[in-house]
Amino acid sequence: MAKERFGAWKNQTSVHLTQPSALDAFLAGLGDIPHDTAPNVVAAKSRDFFWYSPILKERLADCLGDVVVTPRSEADVVAIARLCAAHRVPLTARGGGTGNYGQAVPLHGGVVLDLTGLAAIGPLVDGTIRVGPGAKLKDIDLAARPQGWELRMFPSTYRTATIGGFVAGGSGGIGSITYGVLSERGAIAGARVVTCEAEPRVVELRGYDAHRVQHAYGTNGIITELEIPLAPAQPWVEIAIAFTDFMQLARFAETIGRTDGIMKKLITAVAWPIPRSFGTLKADVPEGSALGLFMIAAATLAPFFELAEAFGGETVYRRTDAEVAASGAVPIFEYTWNHTTLQVLKRDRDVTYLQSAFPSLELVAEMNERFGDEVMQHLEFVRSGGELAIRALQVVRYTTAERLNEIIRIHEERGCPVFNPHTYVIEDGGRKITDPAQLAFKRVADPQGLLNPGKMRGWTPA
Amino acid sequence: MAKERFGAWKNQTSVHLTQPSALDAFLAGLGDIPHDTAPNVVAAKSRDFFWYSPILKERLADCLGDVVVTPRSEADVVAIARLCAAHRVPLTARGGGTGNYGQAVPLHGGVVLDLTGLAAIGPLVDGTIRVGPGAKLKDIDLAARPQGWELRMFPSTYRTATIGGFVAGGSGGIGSITYGVLSERGAIAGARVVTCEAEPRVVELRGYDAHRVQHAYGTNGIITELEIPLAPAQPWVEIAIAFTDFMQLARFAETIGRTDGIMKKLITAVAWPIPRSFGTLKADVPEGSALGLFMIAAATLAPFFELAEAFGGETVYRRTDAEVAASGAVPIFEYTWNHTTLQVLKRDRDVTYLQSAFPSLELVAEMNERFGDEVMQHLEFVRSGGELAIRALQVVRYTTAERLNEIIRIHEERGCPVFNPHTYVIEDGGRKITDPAQLAFKRVADPQGLLNPGKMRGWTPA
Repeated sequence: MAKERFGAWKNQTSVHLTQPSALDAFLAGLGDIPHDTAPNVVAAKSRDFFWYSPILKERLADCLGDVVVTPRSEADVVAIARLCAAHRVPLTARGGGTGNYGQAVPLHGGVVLDLTGLAAIGPLVDGTIRVGPGAKLKDIDLAARPQGWELRMFPSTYRTATIGGFVAGGSGGIGSITYGVLSERGAIAGARVVTCEAEPRVVELRGYDAHRVQHAYGTNGIITELEIPLAPAQPWVEIAIAFTDFMQLARFAETIGRTDGIMKKLITAVAWPIPRSFGTLKADVPEGSALGLFMIAAATLAPFFELAEAFGGETVYRRTDAEVAASGAVPIFEYTWNHTTLQVLKRDRDVTYLQSAFPSLELVAEMNERFGDEVMQHLEFVRSGGELAIRALQVVRYTTAERLNEIIRIHEERGCPVFNPHTYVIEDGGRKITDPAQLAFKRVADPQGLLNPGKMRGWTPA
Repeated sequence: MAKERFGAWKNQTSVHLTQPSALDAFLAGLGDIPHDTAPNVVAAKSRDFFWYSPILKERLADCLGDVVVTPRSEADVVAIARLCAAHRVPLTARGGGTGNYGQAVPLHGGVVLDLTGLAAIGPLVDGTIRVGPGAKLKDIDLAARPQGWELRMFPSTYRTATIGGFVAGGSGGIGSITYGVLSERGAIAGARVVTCEAEPRVVELRGYDAHRVQHAYGTNGIITELEIPLAPAQPWVEIAIAFTDFMQLARFAETIGRTDGIMKKLITAVAWPIPRSFGTLKADVPEGSALGLFMIAAATLAPFFELAEAFGGETVYRRTDAEVAASGAVPIFEYTWNHTTLQVLKRDRDVTYLQSAFPSLELVAEMNERFGDEVMQHLEFVRSGGELAIRALQVVRYTTAERLNEIIRIHEERGCPVFNPHTYVIEDGGRKITDPAQLAFKRVADPQGLLNPGKMRGWTPA
């Protein structure tokens, strides 16, 4: 059984539901809460986009839950948590399942908690919106706009991802160039969380305390409501600019990032041959071009295009967000962030990717020259700690795990930290160390270690 | 005559209107364009707030124009410019006269061009508004808000200053903490400018070209229309936070500046005893306190107050902008930027101020310790070149010009550049060198050197 692979769990005392009698007893306890044990449903809901990574694909492909449970309310969540605590059954929460790191994959079976039914949106008061964890980012955004507000930040999976999944496992995305990344103060205004105990509690986390459950993969509480700060809505324009030279594009992109007078939501720079995989967008991209993808406020198009011309870029695509919505075209951000790799994967299964940070454009140039097409450059510009920062999700031509690790090592030796996307362990990705606030909250909220077990390395049973 | 003091002008060939016959001939040429030679009117319109500076006060107090002309239209401006060119009469444009550096003071007599009649506001299209140079900042802001937009940046003289005067002589203000300063790309979207020639032209400057007339004091063209990019409107909250220690306040203010998740319009930090002069605000400020003044988006109050508490600040004032407008209270920004000095001057005539930049908080601490109450700290945080920057408008207890210059020298020796506010010469203030684009444009737009003569040092007659 796949479950046997995950050593950490062996020391614990949960009951696997693989024994039919245990499963029957558990299901009886669910009462009228919707659930499903059909193998195809369980298989579908035990997966996310971990298959981006050949390493995770091998390790997680066989991991399955035992039952998918779909709460209709916070009261249902409390009842499910109580039942899991009583039966010592693992519980892995999931939203849209669009994560890339196995966040939603149950390593030790048990309950897959499908939160997409908790999709309430609103009320919106003073620029902050309350939402259920299962609300889709797109639906929240579309609900906010008629009230004059819009999402500040969302992943490229906007159309299918839920806010709960994004908060519990995301790091940034479209909008981070202005508002910073998800882990930063102000990104989340509050969260309601159900604990997994004999008598579950509903905990209100206000302000920065809500970050205890951010990027914790649901290991330290079940999110049942979120408060998200919004930005005043304004019209945006999607633009793609081609450059003959990738580093010239990178310099242009950095300049746009540093120009505070230009309001923006997205600054992406990809090297050729990545744009060859860009669906309908590729038709207008000259062979061999590096491509910049941007979302710029309509109010500040003039200075943007002045700079594009000054840097020698060629505008190959330009549509207002209203035109994109009306035409049903693929939004430009679906070629950016994690979607960039996805677009390439559609065409070429032999690639994977890195996530990293570049302290300077000089190091981008150095790595670009060193690896050539083996590591195709993909930069995302964000604000972090009040400064412009260069993030990268390089598309890597995959040969072996050894070579991938060597590429990572070379980047780190040269001062470019890599946030390994080839691990399902929280600490081994971006953060490197266990967040003490997250761990402390897990001790309180999940004393038996039943929530998404195996994902937070720092946790050990008391 | 005061005019004789200004040497540069002696070499030129303009006709002073001090001879009654010359004045009569000139006035006849004005036809029905409104004008006034009444001494009290001419005196009032020949001044601005240069009296902030004891040095400028002495040098500019006697400078007067000969006639105030008030155009009703761009056609009037063209006719006036033609007449000035024909008669070789100096022309000094002015708006609200709220500048501090003698920008609107005619050094060599002639026409004072009062542009407050060109106050058209709108249309507003896609977040950019067209306005006449005489439109007041407050009126533009109030006109934009019902359409869902607001000014991105304005000086503390918002209620009385005109957009033309701000563009022609300002540098930044409320909003610069998000959108950068006025000289930066994107701050101005376009300008229409009338040249001063035998046959004046109306020149359309698009995008960054419009910066040719920014901070040029009207020396290289007469602005008759501006296009200004706006931000989507949102509710703001005015907040004052008291700290027992000024440097702790400064660290808090810098942290707010670096927190991209907090949307803000104003971050000001002043040392005691400055708050003692703060009108109605001072009642709630504990004796001896440093005071932080902030405008924070309603949507991000929670993370702001969390940080205020973490830093040990005490909230002494908090009102929404709607409450301020409804109550007629003094807006909090009228204690910030250049208004800070004004508030102190109301109480104590023996002070003046500096304008400077601090590369770090360490240098703020050093200067604060070195000068004590002789140089009272007043910091304004802005974005500049894509980074958080610390600007200062220190209130200085004035003794002699020598001591003031020594204070300036010490700051500059320690790496804190001072933008001297005690000069009416453009280059001697912030920029130090003549802007080549401004100078080139002056050669084209003002071949006889009639526009606000004596203010741009780099210009010499061809």
